Amino acid sequence: MRPIRETIPLEEARQLIADACRPIDRSERVRLVDANGRVAAANVQSARDVPPFSRAGMDGFAVRAEDTFGASRYEPKSLRVIDKIYTGEVPKTALEAGTAIEIATGAPMPQGADAVVMVEETERAGGDVKVLTPVYPRQNVGRQGADIVVGQTVIARGDVLNPSRIGALAALGVGDVEVFAKPAIAILSTGNEIADPGEELQPGQIYDINKFTLSTIIQEHGGVPAPFSTAQDTIDALERAIDEAVLGHRSLGEGGCDVLVFSGGSSVGERDLILDVIGRKGEIVFHGIAVKPGKPTVFGTINGKPMFGMPGYPTSCLSNAYMLLVPALRAMARLQPRHTATVSLPLGQRIVSTTGRHQFYTVRIVDGQAMPAFKASGDITSMSQADGYIEIPAQTDIVEKGEVVDVKLF
Amino acid sequence: MRPIRETIPLEEARQLIADACRPIDRSERVRLVDANGRVAAANVQSARDVPPFSRAGMDGFAVRAEDTFGASRYEPKSLRVIDKIYTGEVPKTALEAGTAIEIATGAPMPQGADAVVMVEETERAGGDVKVLTPVYPRQNVGRQGADIVVGQTVIARGDVLNPSRIGALAALGVGDVEVFAKPAIAILSTGNEIADPGEELQPGQIYDINKFTLSTIIQEHGGVPAPFSTAQDTIDALERAIDEAVLGHRSLGEGGCDVLVFSGGSSVGERDLILDVIGRKGEIVFHGIAVKPGKPTVFGTINGKPMFGMPGYPTSCLSNAYMLLVPALRAMARLQPRHTATVSLPLGQRIVSTTGRHQFYTVRIVDGQAMPAFKASGDITSMSQADGYIEIPAQTDIVEKGEVVDVKLF
Repeated sequence: MRPIRETIPLEEARQLIADACRPIDRSERVRLVDANGRVAAANVQSARDVPPFSRAGMDGFAVRAEDTFGASRYEPKSLRVIDKIYTGEVPKTALEAGTAIEIATGAPMPQGADAVVMVEETERAGGDVKVLTPVYPRQNVGRQGADIVVGQTVIARGDVLNPSRIGALAALGVGDVEVFAKPAIAILSTGNEIADPGEELQPGQIYDINKFTLSTIIQEHGGVPAPFSTAQDTIDALERAIDEAVLGHRSLGEGGCDVLVFSGGSSVGERDLILDVIGRKGEIVFHGIAVKPGKPTVFGTINGKPMFGMPGYPTSCLSNAYMLLVPALRAMARLQPRHTATVSLPLGQRIVSTTGRHQFYTVRIVDGQAMPAFKASGDITSMSQADGYIEIPAQTDIVEKGEVVDVKLF
Repeated sequence: MRPIRETIPLEEARQLIADACRPIDRSERVRLVDANGRVAAANVQSARDVPPFSRAGMDGFAVRAEDTFGASRYEPKSLRVIDKIYTGEVPKTALEAGTAIEIATGAPMPQGADAVVMVEETERAGGDVKVLTPVYPRQNVGRQGADIVVGQTVIARGDVLNPSRIGALAALGVGDVEVFAKPAIAILSTGNEIADPGEELQPGQIYDINKFTLSTIIQEHGGVPAPFSTAQDTIDALERAIDEAVLGHRSLGEGGCDVLVFSGGSSVGERDLILDVIGRKGEIVFHGIAVKPGKPTVFGTINGKPMFGMPGYPTSCLSNAYMLLVPALRAMARLQPRHTATVSLPLGQRIVSTTGRHQFYTVRIVDGQAMPAFKASGDITSMSQADGYIEIPAQTDIVEKGEVVDVKLF
């Protein structure tokens, strides 16, 4: 049995991981309706003006602005109505001095007109319209190219697509967009005691939790999870699994995964062979972090691909996924760091934390107080029944009841 | 032409919409890996204890705690090692006084043992192990049912599933979960001037933007968008489209949609027939809100189903979707209100807003200042090139340069 002899601080672990994780350069084309949250892989320039023609910005009457100068409610200007333009139509008549053309919002401006009087500022009188207020040239007109001009960069490489940016792409008439590929994350839950849902539990077995928590969190933060079948804890089985993950796999395509995540097998048990296998196939960057939960974490690289060895305990594994994997994953996916909502609340119960490790402590919010929810690292309910967590630095031993703490919400 | 005669305040509009939108009661079963962000439709009780057996919480030696009492580095207690238990195995040997069984984290505790001495607190000496520190009964043991006991409610109806809650379900060995169905939202972009991406623009035409912005925002907030083909602006075409949306549609199943969203056709143009069609088929709740952009918005019900008539202008339509549709959609999907990240920044340029309407003003963040980004309601770049928006109440006419404003980030 090989105990962990030295741990490194959390910040150092994060830096080492950041150094080993590079943004993905592969890209793919997706339809606009599937593009929300994706990251543009190239600038998109407009091939046309938007709007492609000058159009009425209001329902009303297209006019020559100068014909309306001096108009008022007491002295309206009368113009002869010579035509009508609906949206989607092409103007058939050119406007001349002293005339007006009725026009709908969005319809193309007729030749000769340079402004629109809104309908509310007019009165019909037989074949004429009385204009009650003057308009200035270009008033209530959406000029050709006012939104986007031909050649303009509408989306820049690296922009995260959202509803309005997808709208801007739609305005160009494009149906799809080039985006960076999502990082593919191979997940391997090791451990002979692990059973899949639906299987009958044999004596000594438990159901696999980490495969599901990891898959979910990876989806949520811009990655594609590729769960592997549970491997037996033998050197051979693990080496085969790593080869499959690194070199290619049915769910990963021929390039293989971008990141490997193991859960289990990074503690000190005799059967914990991950360290040996990585040591043989790649490079171990660190083993052991001064955090609680999550101390027995391994990080290394295999064929230049980052490899996380998460603790097998569900709460340790998931907590580490939030603290270490998510920042790395989002950087690889070219997404901004995760935004965590925080509330400041008084602590409802004294916490003693004398481990000398940076501690993540799950809490429930009860009657406006943060109540400790942590049971044990092996207990998934430590997290599933919590609303968020607080962090207690390594140097802090006691947080008193009533002290205000920052709760980061899940 | 029928101008909007009266507008109602934003808060009244929101209340009227909230009154008409009810949470969805339909439910469906989804696989755990697809359940993130979904809302549990029923309590889930555990059919078993988790862990299903008492297990070692550390790598080390299973012992009778009383055999270790008084142990110290100077006077270790020696115990005879009689067996070894790996994880996933069943203990074959019962422990007796004066003996110890080597045990891996997660392995079932042998009969007769009530504690585990961690390996770091021991020294091997031939067939014996020297225990250097006493343990108390149950120390380093994860008791059967310590995480979850049989019959315990692990997930409650209405819980939003997240990685840790999905982990708790996985711990029970269930592979799927009953969740509330997502609200289905029929989207109908009206307007003869609207073309679909990939189509050649005819004179007077523009590309459909709203179908894409609406689809995306609906996906993002727990709904399923069902875009319809663009209808021609005739009473017949609109009535057919509504019947299809309300009564059933290939993409909606036989119950039809839960909400209808039209874009375009709610302004005052002669061809704006939506109001007539709703008036004939259902009930108009309001027409016109004192907001900018987004004034010409209709809300009503058809067959008891909420119906939004959004302005055709892309920025007005999307702004209204954020302000009115998203809260309604999230309530129907049983999700918490949208969380908006806010930053307080000095305004980089004076804004004059004398419309008497509650105004949503898009801004870009440039050098730590909020710079106005709004161009016109017809311009999608008013939003796609903005970082967020500020709200200016109806009673405020001027916000000076340098005043600190709350920017809600997109």
